[in-house]
Amino acid sequence: MSSAPDDVLHLLRQRGRSPDPAALEGLMRGVVAAPEGLAGPEWVELFDAQPDAELTRALTAWRAELAKADDGLHASPAPPSRLASLREELARCGLDGFVVPRADEHQGEYVPRRSQRLAWLTGFSGSAGLAIVLADKAAIFIDGRYTLAVRAQVDTEAFVPHQIPEDSPEAWIAANLPKGGKLGFDPWLQTIDGHERYARAAQRAGASFVAVEQNPIDAVWKDRPAPPLAPVLPHPVEFAGETSEQRRRRIADIVAAKGADVALLTAPDSIAWLLNVRGGDVPRTPFALGFALLHTDGHVDLYMDRRKVPARTVAWLGNAVTLAPPEELGAAIDTLGKVGKTVLVETATAPFWAATRLQAAGVAVVRDADPVALPKACKNAVELEGIRTAHRRDGAAVTRFLAWLGRESKNGKLREIEVSDRLQALRQETGKLRDLSFDTISGAGPNGAIVHYHATEATERTLEPGSLYLVDSGAQYRDGTTDITRTVGIGTATPEMRDRFTRVLKGHIALATARFPFGTTGSQLDALARTALWQVGLDYDHGTGHGVGAYLSVHEGPQRISKVANGVALQPGMIVSNEPGYYKTGAYGIRLENLLAVREAEIEGADRRYLEFETLTLAPLDLNCVDVGLLTDQEKAWLNAYHARVREVVAPQVDEATRAWLAEATRAI
Amino acid sequence: MSSAPDDVLHLLRQRGRSPDPAALEGLMRGVVAAPEGLAGPEWVELFDAQPDAELTRALTAWRAELAKADDGLHASPAPPSRLASLREELARCGLDGFVVPRADEHQGEYVPRRSQRLAWLTGFSGSAGLAIVLADKAAIFIDGRYTLAVRAQVDTEAFVPHQIPEDSPEAWIAANLPKGGKLGFDPWLQTIDGHERYARAAQRAGASFVAVEQNPIDAVWKDRPAPPLAPVLPHPVEFAGETSEQRRRRIADIVAAKGADVALLTAPDSIAWLLNVRGGDVPRTPFALGFALLHTDGHVDLYMDRRKVPARTVAWLGNAVTLAPPEELGAAIDTLGKVGKTVLVETATAPFWAATRLQAAGVAVVRDADPVALPKACKNAVELEGIRTAHRRDGAAVTRFLAWLGRESKNGKLREIEVSDRLQALRQETGKLRDLSFDTISGAGPNGAIVHYHATEATERTLEPGSLYLVDSGAQYRDGTTDITRTVGIGTATPEMRDRFTRVLKGHIALATARFPFGTTGSQLDALARTALWQVGLDYDHGTGHGVGAYLSVHEGPQRISKVANGVALQPGMIVSNEPGYYKTGAYGIRLENLLAVREAEIEGADRRYLEFETLTLAPLDLNCVDVGLLTDQEKAWLNAYHARVREVVAPQVDEATRAWLAEATRAI
Repeated sequence: MSSAPDDVLHLLRQRGRSPDPAALEGLMRGVVAAPEGLAGPEWVELFDAQPDAELTRALTAWRAELAKADDGLHASPAPPSRLASLREELARCGLDGFVVPRADEHQGEYVPRRSQRLAWLTGFSGSAGLAIVLADKAAIFIDGRYTLAVRAQVDTEAFVPHQIPEDSPEAWIAANLPKGGKLGFDPWLQTIDGHERYARAAQRAGASFVAVEQNPIDAVWKDRPAPPLAPVLPHPVEFAGETSEQRRRRIADIVAAKGADVALLTAPDSIAWLLNVRGGDVPRTPFALGFALLHTDGHVDLYMDRRKVPARTVAWLGNAVTLAPPEELGAAIDTLGKVGKTVLVETATAPFWAATRLQAAGVAVVRDADPVALPKACKNAVELEGIRTAHRRDGAAVTRFLAWLGRESKNGKLREIEVSDRLQALRQETGKLRDLSFDTISGAGPNGAIVHYHATEATERTLEPGSLYLVDSGAQYRDGTTDITRTVGIGTATPEMRDRFTRVLKGHIALATARFPFGTTGSQLDALARTALWQVGLDYDHGTGHGVGAYLSVHEGPQRISKVANGVALQPGMIVSNEPGYYKTGAYGIRLENLLAVREAEIEGADRRYLEFETLTLAPLDLNCVDVGLLTDQEKAWLNAYHARVREVVAPQVDEATRAWLAEATRAI
Repeated sequence: MSSAPDDVLHLLRQRGRSPDPAALEGLMRGVVAAPEGLAGPEWVELFDAQPDAELTRALTAWRAELAKADDGLHASPAPPSRLASLREELARCGLDGFVVPRADEHQGEYVPRRSQRLAWLTGFSGSAGLAIVLADKAAIFIDGRYTLAVRAQVDTEAFVPHQIPEDSPEAWIAANLPKGGKLGFDPWLQTIDGHERYARAAQRAGASFVAVEQNPIDAVWKDRPAPPLAPVLPHPVEFAGETSEQRRRRIADIVAAKGADVALLTAPDSIAWLLNVRGGDVPRTPFALGFALLHTDGHVDLYMDRRKVPARTVAWLGNAVTLAPPEELGAAIDTLGKVGKTVLVETATAPFWAATRLQAAGVAVVRDADPVALPKACKNAVELEGIRTAHRRDGAAVTRFLAWLGRESKNGKLREIEVSDRLQALRQETGKLRDLSFDTISGAGPNGAIVHYHATEATERTLEPGSLYLVDSGAQYRDGTTDITRTVGIGTATPEMRDRFTRVLKGHIALATARFPFGTTGSQLDALARTALWQVGLDYDHGTGHGVGAYLSVHEGPQRISKVANGVALQPGMIVSNEPGYYKTGAYGIRLENLLAVREAEIEGADRRYLEFETLTLAPLDLNCVDVGLLTDQEKAWLNAYHARVREVVAPQVDEATRAWLAEATRAI
């Protein structure tokens, strides 16, 4: 069954509607292509502005039915017929090869199911990767996080794995492309900067890098899901702290100052922030896929499927936002060319398609950062207050979880998935949970050492006495996005584990207590979180801190605390994570993560303006894993003050048993 | 008197020579244009390969006589007639303006007297600056170090001062150049990168940036000094640790790997390192000005005035180095074009002249870093041993100085210049001093807060009780270059001074004891030296560490420990300074500087390869300024161990009184 069921048609007709079964089915296919989230059936509003329980029930049943259809994304490794049919299609198109990135048109961390071409073709489900298919060979490029996963999920005879950055796709292209060959790519999936690198690599091989009109995978992927249609809903000013009009004017001024008339926005979180709306087209992230043109008068042309924008949201967007179908973006660019406009584009993320179209239209281009990125990163007072509220709520849920874990783990029988399910359930009990902010990492013992571990029935382990358990999780609430990692000793930790845990904690405290002048970047602070480990010859292979959105992406830029050079200075209102770690392969993993807000420091007699961090996350750190002898007096003072604050905020929100556990867990050392 | 005196002619004729008086005079004018240094009259060898005492005396008298001539560089502010005559000359050349940088053709820190056009034109003697002269106005651009100096030295009615980076020459050009105007520049003094920026600025004003054939200042500067002619002498393998042939082959391979056939070297220290020679054309830095082309077969064409290369150095250079007059570099580039060679050029430092000539000659260009810079920065085992020896020697001289200062400063009458003279005299007593490595900074009380202070009779202060005295100095020895700063309490330091001193010391120790993985840059470590100050809202406005040459420039790249992003990873054998500081304007300055060598750390159980620092500098830090209560146990342990090492190395080298003082100065705390 796929067409609209009779009961749905009947109920809609009862409401005086004249439903078109084909249109209804198209809409439902879009709904099914979007993730379900945890916020309840808000999507029903796309069918009727004021659905009742009966209609909701009927639609929910239909959705469940349709969701059973196989979209080809469950096979791992992928059937070899897919690669064969792609090669046939390439031959038909006169191409010698094709690049299959994991990306969609928006270069986000999550992509909708219909854009999971890499997973469909290879079976690889990681969040970053790239395949290059030639007539007689194919390669898949993944980074260090996925070295093991790629071998488990992919037929590595068909797709030879290469690890980035040691091996680069560019080097492979230069070495393997036949002279005079044509390597195809989808210009919607390749960024302008990326195109430049790959085109140069193809040139080195004496070959060419050719944009295709139609992605050949789409031609051979039967049952490819529809574009997702999750409802686009207002994000009220009580959370945003600023009207969309204010935001549009503010960013328009930035665009004008850069010498452009229009900014092309291709990042869905930039658009969500600018227009004060939220959606749900991809997992764990409340934004709606689309494109936008922001004019310097503050007007926005929003290229987004109207079916996912309910009437109340159209009203919310107001007259200064014009809604248009995504297919019309090209024609709009042509018009900008005709009237001699200059367009600002971020070449690191905008699709090569845009560069081509802008050039063909004769549009002058200013290459610059997405003008929304930095203002979005600097949260206003209302957003910060919401974020604090979200963390107080989330901290109570996590504390309840940790207390439960402390009791239940004593039997030595808990398994990774039931534990993360419990954490999710406790967050749901807050009544405010919209979604997780990412898939929970729940790693017992050696699984904790896998930085981006995802527990499955096949991989999950028991939380055994004498081991460490690492849980990295987060929540999407309307008032804020959280991200917290705790590492918990199951039974008694070994002296080595306690030494490592304490060094990670020292790094965490060094960053949490840092003060630094305006103008300082995260790259400059990164070492503070590592020195205690470096002293004994240990390190961790990930960044120390990422930006976090306000009920938006759990990972956002432009700031970052990392070894990688980053020129963006930290500024008041920015949120960053503080998550040093240590991983002993095959043994255990440690990571201690709180979110921080950057704020101005009040220092008497300071020689200039300084910044410091406010710790937002509120849940106990496992004192049983701390080697107190390694801590300085100042570090102990920080830990005691932090725990006192956790106790003060969380105790009133939790049950008696949790409160008792909390008192012990936050004891002064 | 300027032509060769009779006694010189007579003595040379006695040796069977037929001296040409005009040639002799030209040579002596070049000798006079070079700084004297402290190594004795080695320059006499340029007149005769084996001079005796009598000839030396006669030549020295002649030199002294010629040196009295006024080259126009003593006037400060400069007479207004100079600006007027330049403007006349510009009008004659059809130029609307002219750029006068402080730079010479090699973009080094020191420039020869004939290249001090900025000083001649304005009176400004700072080590960085730029004037732009238009028909009706003129500006001088200096950085924060010279805010006060520019007002003291320059007629600021004629040249309006602007501070970089707040004001930029580019912005001034864009705002002030007349539409259609021609702004002239000397293509030998403008780098390729700099030209790009200025040309764009002129374009913004609707004007053009025009290279001149002849610098118009040279047309109006009567008595402009000759090009300096200091003797170029062999730098033996006992110090260099590697033959020039080995070096030339090593760098030639790097050049070839970059896809070039030839490297154009314009940095004199790169040439000195590559060819194992040393010179003395500019103050405090033992290199010879010149250019070189390094071919991938290891052959070098050296463009250098032959008069400063004695016969024994020509022999030392060998057959693989061809000496040619500097004027022939252009023709050589033309030839490279004819035979289709590709040339590597560092656009950040090479003159725009080279870019023009290479392009005109049809030479393919690879833009890359000077291929010598990184290998030169990584000292080999022999160089490191020489550098250690130099520091042991220098540490003894500095310790004798500190002991003397401790005794003599009690009378409260010492003056800055006599104190630095004393330090120089003690270094000269080592019998090995070739020169200072830079002009000593000797700052008492408030003068210590001026980061690049230079004591004059007009500015010097008395070392008063209750004040701090800062002395930053260094030496050039054949086996190594030193650079050390000590801050000494005169009488009793105030609690505030001791707090600041101790925080600077904590930063110094944090860097000295850091361990970090291979791949770490100085930018990543910089914050370690600042956090103790940042915590109380204080900072210092200079880098934490610079590279140091091996009997070469006291400031060299490419590594650097600084807030400024720098992509060069620290590597074994690199030398860096460790010099955090704190400056309270109008009150006192604190800086504690040791040189460090980067070495691999041996850490049992390390998860990868790590680096650490070896402290090279050996002289006591003033314990009377330390607030011991602010130090951690680990910091105290470092300080005690450092002082124990200083005592062990220095005590055997010094007199009884110094030894007694040293025992007390290095007591355990």
